[in-house]
Amino acid sequence: MDTIKRLFTTASKTYNRQMPHYALCLELVLYCHQKLRAKSEFRHYGYFSGNPRVAYGVFALDDSVSRPVRNELYLSDEATFTREHREVIALLRDRNHTWTPADYEKVNRVIYTAIMAFACCYDLWKRSSRKTPGTFFEVFMAGLLQIVFPEATFSKHIPLAAIVADDEVASEAVSEAADDGPLEIDDDDEKSSVSTDVVMGLPGKSGGIVIPLKITTRERIVQPFAHQRILDAAFGEGHYKSMIVCISETQLDDKTKSVKQVCVPGTIKLFQKHLAPTAGMYYCDVPQRYAAADMTKIVNVRSVGHLFEDIRSILAALTSQGKAD
Amino acid sequence: MDTIKRLFTTASKTYNRQMPHYALCLELVLYCHQKLRAKSEFRHYGYFSGNPRVAYGVFALDDSVSRPVRNELYLSDEATFTREHREVIALLRDRNHTWTPADYEKVNRVIYTAIMAFACCYDLWKRSSRKTPGTFFEVFMAGLLQIVFPEATFSKHIPLAAIVADDEVASEAVSEAADDGPLEIDDDDEKSSVSTDVVMGLPGKSGGIVIPLKITTRERIVQPFAHQRILDAAFGEGHYKSMIVCISETQLDDKTKSVKQVCVPGTIKLFQKHLAPTAGMYYCDVPQRYAAADMTKIVNVRSVGHLFEDIRSILAALTSQGKAD
Repeated sequence: MDTIKRLFTTASKTYNRQMPHYALCLELVLYCHQKLRAKSEFRHYGYFSGNPRVAYGVFALDDSVSRPVRNELYLSDEATFTREHREVIALLRDRNHTWTPADYEKVNRVIYTAIMAFACCYDLWKRSSRKTPGTFFEVFMAGLLQIVFPEATFSKHIPLAAIVADDEVASEAVSEAADDGPLEIDDDDEKSSVSTDVVMGLPGKSGGIVIPLKITTRERIVQPFAHQRILDAAFGEGHYKSMIVCISETQLDDKTKSVKQVCVPGTIKLFQKHLAPTAGMYYCDVPQRYAAADMTKIVNVRSVGHLFEDIRSILAALTSQGKAD
Repeated sequence: MDTIKRLFTTASKTYNRQMPHYALCLELVLYCHQKLRAKSEFRHYGYFSGNPRVAYGVFALDDSVSRPVRNELYLSDEATFTREHREVIALLRDRNHTWTPADYEKVNRVIYTAIMAFACCYDLWKRSSRKTPGTFFEVFMAGLLQIVFPEATFSKHIPLAAIVADDEVASEAVSEAADDGPLEIDDDDEKSSVSTDVVMGLPGKSGGIVIPLKITTRERIVQPFAHQRILDAAFGEGHYKSMIVCISETQLDDKTKSVKQVCVPGTIKLFQKHLAPTAGMYYCDVPQRYAAADMTKIVNVRSVGHLFEDIRSILAALTSQGKAD
């Protein structure tokens, strides 16, 4: 694991220095992918008993197993992964690409494989560092987005100076708020000082896209909705749009040897309606419950394969918005 | 630890069955208090370098130490604890009691000692069960509140049927939301199915008090504000009032052998103003940063000693409100 840790540290430090780091992420992914093939066994674990039912496997080593891995999303053959990755980069960079269902699936598979290869290595060989896979998800996606949208600006913070104007809180309070949040609330956690948000914009334009990245949401799902509300209060509704990007909501059930998809549809509907509306929730392994019509009529739930097309639309609107001003 | 676990299970099961359970909590507290005295050493750890600086100790056993314990709040002498506990119960039950500063401090000390005795036992002998001290905090406080306010109703849920009236979400969605939240979002966590909220009301009256209990808030601080907003949307502003009750925001700093108070004042101000206003935040060990004037003019920050008087006022207002209808 020393090599993995070293490669991860290099990639994340390079990212924090705002230097190109995607190649380092990819090197790390390939190393993890290889290590899992060489040192562990991928085997069937059980099914999510949905409609249709879904097969999940795990990487296993002696008595320990990784998180559940959805069979048809994980590209276990290295040659297939590198070929599909190459194709994905090409299609994501093509501004005039006409998307097909197969394209969305390919993008989804490649991102799922990259993140899961790293996360499952941590599950098997470094279980105590539970937060690191989530951090890698942020670092990897930031790198990919930077390559796909070279015209965009990237940051981790949104300065809240604008909130002063219509707010009786003294500027002292606001500058302080900008120091410790509100888009960095994860940083207050005792275990970590890494924000899990990527903020995209365009040079010379205000507003943009906030992308909270969470491998799985659990009780933290309230955060992006609360942050969106603060942003709406500070900058006006929809000036910033949040796109929540996740891998899955799966969980092993050891007793029944099955996989659960842990969902809170009612809670999300309430947040979307009564905290603030987000622009969408994107999953590699979309939970079946969230893909149901009662959810999608309230929240835009799609696969991560759709994320890039949707970001391109929002950035295009931001560009023309500027022209109209 | 088997005895502690057995006593805890008995107390929490009795609570969940809605039967009187406070005596069981107290038995457990005394057992923990005694075990810490007999099997560990309480020693000075370091200071929080505030103004004034604050001394903290830890319970130590071999190489492991407990969370930081504020010296002057922890009653290490059993006779003192049982005497002060008896006095606290008497004064809390006295509806006509005229509170003195010494009373607030005594209530604070007794609750702090009870919760810390249990939590520090878990720190030393059952470190893997990280969520259990938080659950005990809820179970203990619910028991104490039931004894002090026998006229009140207690529950863990607020039915959200009222949200249907002015809401385009189908009733299906609402009943579902009531199932998984929104006041039980913690339950979606993979590790636990215990809500950390107590809801107090009065028979025949709607509205009431929501009491989120958290030993320490960390990144979960957003939840009570988000819940308050949902309740405001569902029932009208202030129909339910949230009183956030915590023990402390302390953290050991192993490198410097000091104690930090982890605070996010800017974030809390933004939540209080732009999500929804809560009725107050109560701490046994009030963080100095939160007691500063810029905070207290926006959020009501007080010691847990003040909680009971404030609850009595709100319940009294609820009673007279009913008369006026």
